[in-house]
Amino acid sequence: MKIALAQLNYHIGNFEANTQKIIKTLEEQKAKGVDLVVFAELCICGYPPRDFLEYPEFIDHCEAEAQKVAAASVGIACIIGLPKLNPVLEGKDLYNVAYFIEDGKVKQTVKKALLPTYDVFDEYRYFEPAHEFKCVDFKGYKIALTVCEDLWNLGDNPLYKTCPMDELIKEEPDLMINIAASPFAYNHDEERIFVLSQNCHKYNLPLFYVNHVGAQTELIFDGGSLVFDKAGDIVHEFKYFEEDVQVFDVEQIKRSIVLNKEQVRQTHTEQVYQALILGIKDYFEKSGFTKATLGLSGGIDSAVVCALACEALGAENVMAVLMPSKYSSDHSIKDAEDLVKNLGCKSTIISIEEVADAFEHTLKPEFKDLPANVTEENIQARSRGVILMAMSNKFGYILLNTSNKSESAVGYGTLYGDMCGAISVIGDCYKTQVYQLAEYINRQKEIIPVNSIVKPPSAELRPGQKDSDSLPDYDILDKILFEYIELKKSLKDIVSLGYDEALVKRILKMVNQAEFKRYQTPPTLRVSPKAFGMGRRMPIVGKYLS
Amino acid sequence: MKIALAQLNYHIGNFEANTQKIIKTLEEQKAKGVDLVVFAELCICGYPPRDFLEYPEFIDHCEAEAQKVAAASVGIACIIGLPKLNPVLEGKDLYNVAYFIEDGKVKQTVKKALLPTYDVFDEYRYFEPAHEFKCVDFKGYKIALTVCEDLWNLGDNPLYKTCPMDELIKEEPDLMINIAASPFAYNHDEERIFVLSQNCHKYNLPLFYVNHVGAQTELIFDGGSLVFDKAGDIVHEFKYFEEDVQVFDVEQIKRSIVLNKEQVRQTHTEQVYQALILGIKDYFEKSGFTKATLGLSGGIDSAVVCALACEALGAENVMAVLMPSKYSSDHSIKDAEDLVKNLGCKSTIISIEEVADAFEHTLKPEFKDLPANVTEENIQARSRGVILMAMSNKFGYILLNTSNKSESAVGYGTLYGDMCGAISVIGDCYKTQVYQLAEYINRQKEIIPVNSIVKPPSAELRPGQKDSDSLPDYDILDKILFEYIELKKSLKDIVSLGYDEALVKRILKMVNQAEFKRYQTPPTLRVSPKAFGMGRRMPIVGKYLS
Repeated sequence: MKIALAQLNYHIGNFEANTQKIIKTLEEQKAKGVDLVVFAELCICGYPPRDFLEYPEFIDHCEAEAQKVAAASVGIACIIGLPKLNPVLEGKDLYNVAYFIEDGKVKQTVKKALLPTYDVFDEYRYFEPAHEFKCVDFKGYKIALTVCEDLWNLGDNPLYKTCPMDELIKEEPDLMINIAASPFAYNHDEERIFVLSQNCHKYNLPLFYVNHVGAQTELIFDGGSLVFDKAGDIVHEFKYFEEDVQVFDVEQIKRSIVLNKEQVRQTHTEQVYQALILGIKDYFEKSGFTKATLGLSGGIDSAVVCALACEALGAENVMAVLMPSKYSSDHSIKDAEDLVKNLGCKSTIISIEEVADAFEHTLKPEFKDLPANVTEENIQARSRGVILMAMSNKFGYILLNTSNKSESAVGYGTLYGDMCGAISVIGDCYKTQVYQLAEYINRQKEIIPVNSIVKPPSAELRPGQKDSDSLPDYDILDKILFEYIELKKSLKDIVSLGYDEALVKRILKMVNQAEFKRYQTPPTLRVSPKAFGMGRRMPIVGKYLS
Repeated sequence: MKIALAQLNYHIGNFEANTQKIIKTLEEQKAKGVDLVVFAELCICGYPPRDFLEYPEFIDHCEAEAQKVAAASVGIACIIGLPKLNPVLEGKDLYNVAYFIEDGKVKQTVKKALLPTYDVFDEYRYFEPAHEFKCVDFKGYKIALTVCEDLWNLGDNPLYKTCPMDELIKEEPDLMINIAASPFAYNHDEERIFVLSQNCHKYNLPLFYVNHVGAQTELIFDGGSLVFDKAGDIVHEFKYFEEDVQVFDVEQIKRSIVLNKEQVRQTHTEQVYQALILGIKDYFEKSGFTKATLGLSGGIDSAVVCALACEALGAENVMAVLMPSKYSSDHSIKDAEDLVKNLGCKSTIISIEEVADAFEHTLKPEFKDLPANVTEENIQARSRGVILMAMSNKFGYILLNTSNKSESAVGYGTLYGDMCGAISVIGDCYKTQVYQLAEYINRQKEIIPVNSIVKPPSAELRPGQKDSDSLPDYDILDKILFEYIELKKSLKDIVSLGYDEALVKRILKMVNQAEFKRYQTPPTLRVSPKAFGMGRRMPIVGKYLS
């Protein structure tokens, strides 16, 4: 039996494009003599469809598209994923299912049992879990077909009481197939490989695993589909961050002929770099946009975002806007101009002095002789926001946000100012990770001016301002933030690692008090196991460690 | 047995304040000879604590506070709610429990079985459902004690397979007690009364039901705790939107002496009015703020928000900012000034002409002779946003957002402009509901100038602009939006109600295309069964009906 795994990039709710892509792949594989093509979880509608799942019309649409795929599956079998109405008036309205399609018909429906509700996932909001399990018979093979999370309980995952493979194995299947929608985080590919490999070990079966690739707003699916032999060794690891379709001979895999065992793993920084490129690219393509703008300060954050945008969209589609004020240092303009030269993107200089002065003059009767403070700093940041949005409105550029995760965590940024943008590119990268990205971008030649990397970070909103005036060094800050945000450690536990108690207290307080700001920030490309946004849901008007 | 129900206003994560309030109530009731005081669901930490529940330190804190309450419960029993660690490494980490505390000790722990995951709820993200049920014995009574949703399956709710009361009734209890956290929506009090009353009918038992009161950012808990006799008739309906503690003699209730059967129900508009007042009030009190600002345009939306803010915070704490441009009509300033006079709040006039001109002049080298379009309209709205935020930054006023639900639905508003604010006051009220609120506010005398109510709505961002230039009449728009957003009807079903197909298509498209804007808007006080925000989770880069 020849089996093709199709790792494709879908678009949520874009039924026409998704179905077309699936049928085209089917036809190509049929021409190659393939017996079965496997597509990813919920490929019909894209993942995650979120509350569209509550619209009965959306569900009807999914079924209709699945029938189109079935009708096109003559002479070739396939597996597709879709949400399906629960016919019984008990439990949730829907199941998350895989259709096994053969001879133009849905031959078997496999329901997902383990429904993640942690982090970015909300599956139990919509889906009823499966309680019955049955293998699929196809061309003399017995296939243990499961959906994504169903392989994530090997019997020892406390989250789940069901272990679907423990049930399916009773039928003595010949192989496992899993269709997934497993989003990227820099450490997730290794977890994924480990868990899937453990399944092969435990059940002594080969595994064909198909993931999504492509970004859906903040969630980036990295692909990296996998084929394992029954010993749990990797037979083939698919491309990351690209569509990829590969054909396998099941007999060969069953005989455990390892073709490609030792793939060199990418560093986290390389992965994050590629993930962000894909995140930008798909945000634009799927929204129907081509051109981006951003404010270029001469600092490292906007430099990295600009370089990423040029790589993702083409330098000719990126408009960098330099917006000096009276507090901008000379080197900032020069560093920004050097970057533009290195990248070859478009740029323009728009001074904010006139508008900032106009605001101060307009507000003079209110503010009288009150001393300048954060108000005037915010006016500058917001004047830049208005200018960038005006460029966006007038010319159709989409504004990229350039805030990093460290700033976002402690609320070091101006709402409606530098926190503007359609999508936050590096908002899930701590400042120290931004430096790593800069070094990676400069791996072959200097693209980001070294001066942007080595100079002390500054928002340049008042004379001589430095980030270190109000924040601890990023080396320390980022470590404390990681302990609190990613690892959910307590104040006490973080202090016990050797950090100053008053400092840790101050930082945790800043994090909790900045929830109101983060609530209004753009969606953030998720590259870590715990990003701000849909995967971290905090009260705003709480009073805990704040 | 004398039982007190304590309907109190808690603050998420503010353990000190919550515990103090609980212990103070215990002492007061003890002095009155009460035997048992019932507090609401998760009263120890406030509801909803959201992802704070993932912090082990937060959970430890809850347990420690519960032990303080237990220690204070000598000579009086009480029921409190808190999250509790699941001691077994199977299932979720936590249970949502009620502690029955007697003689200074936790005598029994009752776990919640039915965990809502619809709309604003995420309980299965955190909690393991109960599978075992046992009544509590106290002073010769057998009490069927349940937590909130556990009474929302009478055996016929397809969402749930468990019916806790069907289990508890086997022990032949004498009464039911339910501790709840049931947020306000204008139609929810009637649903609540109906469902609770049905429980009394079905099990032939009296019911003591305690709800939260108070707002937690966007979620408003309306109180309205209830006591029913075994026939399902209301014995007592607690105050709405206020703290309220009442004592009952269980024997009297058991004998079904209806004390207060026919309470006049408030209209939806009255309820929404009171909910919004409480929403504003608690946002400020719980954040430690006292003063608000808002932009006053002379239109009805900002007029209603200003009147609500004055009622909630005191007119002396409200600063209305009139920001005319060259496109503002004379009557707008006059209408705004009349409102200020009627309300007695502070006000100031800050023209945006100078800053808008400065932006246009600054951008002239970029825009050259391109015709004015939405860009220049947005510059005006954003100039106002910057000014309001500057007033906020300089003087500590918190900015109230004045967008309504109709605008928010179709994206008729400027991101970082009129969509700024810490909290959206009427963002869950359709324009037609805003008119009803205005009429209610004017029920005794003219507070909102009649001219603001009768004139055609306009954003006044270009000469002679009217909302009706780009939107259908609000009467029609709001009805279509309600069908789509609240009722989740399909295009076809909405058209079949008699609306023009092209119009419905256009509106649904506007709604779906505005997701990116709504993602960045302030939290919105929720008063309807389907508000934008945490209860409506849509993809941004989707392509469905868009």
